[in-house]
Amino acid sequence: MARLVLKFGGTSVANVMRLEHVAEIVKKEAEAGHQVVVVVSAMAGITNELVSYVNALCPSKVTPEHDVVLSSGEQVTSGLLALALQRLGLKSRSYLSWQIPILTSTSSSQAKILEIPTNQLECCLKEGSIPVVAGFQGMTKEGRLTTLGRGGSDTTAVALAAALKADRCDIYTDVNGIYTADPRLVPRAKKLKTITYAEMFELASQGAKVLQARSVELAMKHKVKLRVLSSFSESEGTTVVEERDKVEGTLVSGIAHTQNEAKVTLMGVPDQVGIAANIFGCLSENQICADMIVQGCMQDGKSDLAFILQKSDLDRAVPLLEDAKKKIGFTDVVIDKEIAKISVVGIGMRSNLEIATTLFKTLAEKSINIQMISSSEIRVSVVISLKSMSVALEALHAAFNLDEKKA
Amino acid sequence: MARLVLKFGGTSVANVMRLEHVAEIVKKEAEAGHQVVVVVSAMAGITNELVSYVNALCPSKVTPEHDVVLSSGEQVTSGLLALALQRLGLKSRSYLSWQIPILTSTSSSQAKILEIPTNQLECCLKEGSIPVVAGFQGMTKEGRLTTLGRGGSDTTAVALAAALKADRCDIYTDVNGIYTADPRLVPRAKKLKTITYAEMFELASQGAKVLQARSVELAMKHKVKLRVLSSFSESEGTTVVEERDKVEGTLVSGIAHTQNEAKVTLMGVPDQVGIAANIFGCLSENQICADMIVQGCMQDGKSDLAFILQKSDLDRAVPLLEDAKKKIGFTDVVIDKEIAKISVVGIGMRSNLEIATTLFKTLAEKSINIQMISSSEIRVSVVISLKSMSVALEALHAAFNLDEKKA
Repeated sequence: MARLVLKFGGTSVANVMRLEHVAEIVKKEAEAGHQVVVVVSAMAGITNELVSYVNALCPSKVTPEHDVVLSSGEQVTSGLLALALQRLGLKSRSYLSWQIPILTSTSSSQAKILEIPTNQLECCLKEGSIPVVAGFQGMTKEGRLTTLGRGGSDTTAVALAAALKADRCDIYTDVNGIYTADPRLVPRAKKLKTITYAEMFELASQGAKVLQARSVELAMKHKVKLRVLSSFSESEGTTVVEERDKVEGTLVSGIAHTQNEAKVTLMGVPDQVGIAANIFGCLSENQICADMIVQGCMQDGKSDLAFILQKSDLDRAVPLLEDAKKKIGFTDVVIDKEIAKISVVGIGMRSNLEIATTLFKTLAEKSINIQMISSSEIRVSVVISLKSMSVALEALHAAFNLDEKKA
Repeated sequence: MARLVLKFGGTSVANVMRLEHVAEIVKKEAEAGHQVVVVVSAMAGITNELVSYVNALCPSKVTPEHDVVLSSGEQVTSGLLALALQRLGLKSRSYLSWQIPILTSTSSSQAKILEIPTNQLECCLKEGSIPVVAGFQGMTKEGRLTTLGRGGSDTTAVALAAALKADRCDIYTDVNGIYTADPRLVPRAKKLKTITYAEMFELASQGAKVLQARSVELAMKHKVKLRVLSSFSESEGTTVVEERDKVEGTLVSGIAHTQNEAKVTLMGVPDQVGIAANIFGCLSENQICADMIVQGCMQDGKSDLAFILQKSDLDRAVPLLEDAKKKIGFTDVVIDKEIAKISVVGIGMRSNLEIATTLFKTLAEKSINIQMISSSEIRVSVVISLKSMSVALEALHAAFNLDEKKA
């Protein structure tokens, strides 16, 4: 008998029919003799609808009331799935974050889990009942609701798996597993049987939407065995492991891309101490995260400063930058929304400088201009124009020997 | 400075624009120097949608998970209205039932409020902040969510007004107040300036949808000053009072109707002790409420037994009655969904037998057959065929001198 945490995301629980299907999956695991804890997201589309309401009323900042509104979607799904399980003759009940409680920090819309007492859930399991936990939600010590950021239900699942010392955490989604690239853009992309935590973390951070990056980080820290699979098919999915066997030619595990970001260039920034700290401090205080910061060459004591941020943060960032412009005295703020970021990820990269070289050479061959570069130990990311994204993805996928071999 | 509880129902909070309008109403009261506590329902349509989900998964009985799903709608509205108030520069925060907590009994979907500790809300008011309480919800002592039945937010508002010793409880809705009959069916219906608790309770119990009957009962018990008015107009509404000045010709205060009920006739029920107790006990155990029970004349030791119940309970009631048929041995269960119940309500009725006489005579003049009769101290109700309902309403409205005088 194993102890499993099963997490089901938005499209897996999109409607009553899908919920009944999910209930069958849960039943199968329970009947195989496993102890099962379920975590659910909101039904597909619901969170977007709730976000549109709060944005209409309060576009400029995030308050604790955002979390009150947004967390309601998971409450609905947890109750409905518990009903669906009961209908199949299983004992089940829903758990909301405040009932466990899943204690978090106070930062609205991006709270961090601090502690999960397990006595309630252990009790439920001991009674032979299946707890269905509302994902994404948390509660502060003061008893206010919080949420864990987009994709936060993955983090709820992994955190519960760690707290309950589960044997495995299965993340059910609408794709069969982790692919070497987005199969919608790269037809020859292939599914990975295994991937390391580190690679998965980089891919998730760089735009692969299958898992929330924080959930991978948490799984790595607590050595939670993680599996990504589809609730729509019987395919075996991808298992996230600590070490992957290195096979020749697979030093790169995957290519992630994102088109959700915009490039911001501050023109003619004076060369004074503390200016960057000033600008990025102000953005960060407003929960706006800048990335890939590049400073241009100095000319006449001035230089350009470029960085990228989420397009969805632009409306809040621009007024802050215009304020900074007056105070600091740079000449202009230029926004470019037509960019894409492409990231090549692989544990082989550490010792393989040629991977960066292959990346740059491949893009050059396709006459694609690289606007920005950043890298980590196992990743190289570049910003290019949005219109070149597809071509770049396919070319890189082939260049790194990731293409599916025709049988 | 007065202390007010303001409650806003479904259409008043149907969308972001309406929420902003409600925020303006709240602001006006706050700026007049009043201490304000707000109670909100779910946005119009949401509860019906949630009900359709739970019914699809669990049509046959009500479980605690129903309450988990249904109570989410009020959570959304409370968060959104708090945001709208903050946007107008007011201090405000949402309160969910479990945060106060509003402690209730455990009966799913029709929990009764047991206790409301006021320290949290008093604290909030002392800080000059406006609490926006999610209506309809409660929490059991074991920490599970409950709901108070359809229209339960009215009861939340009145219970809070009682607990907080508020000077008044204003129920904002989509009509201008309490009318002598439904203005959509009786064009000459007129708005009442005042109505007594007892009359309001009877009207609400008998189909007037403006207020939940339990909220009126609670207001009467705790002497909460209650006002019903529209969030869509500036009209002054109807005040619910203890005693109404009796004006000649207004012994009847209003006529309510409902078409949500079905008539059930059990044919050939044997004359044995305990049979009625058996049948109605079984319905009541399943939270099905039978009303207007009529026993026909005995013939050969058998008689017919007729009663009405909510059409929405039929699916659950019929299997129970078929079971009873086998056990008890009556011949048949006949269902008639084409009925309407009309109730004439007035505090004058106690001493005015002629009101019942006028009721019967008016219907006879229109050749409308009365199928069932019941009465309380201040009400006479009749069941007639659904197709006669409009004619009956208009004729009775005129016969009891309720018609609006043309200016």
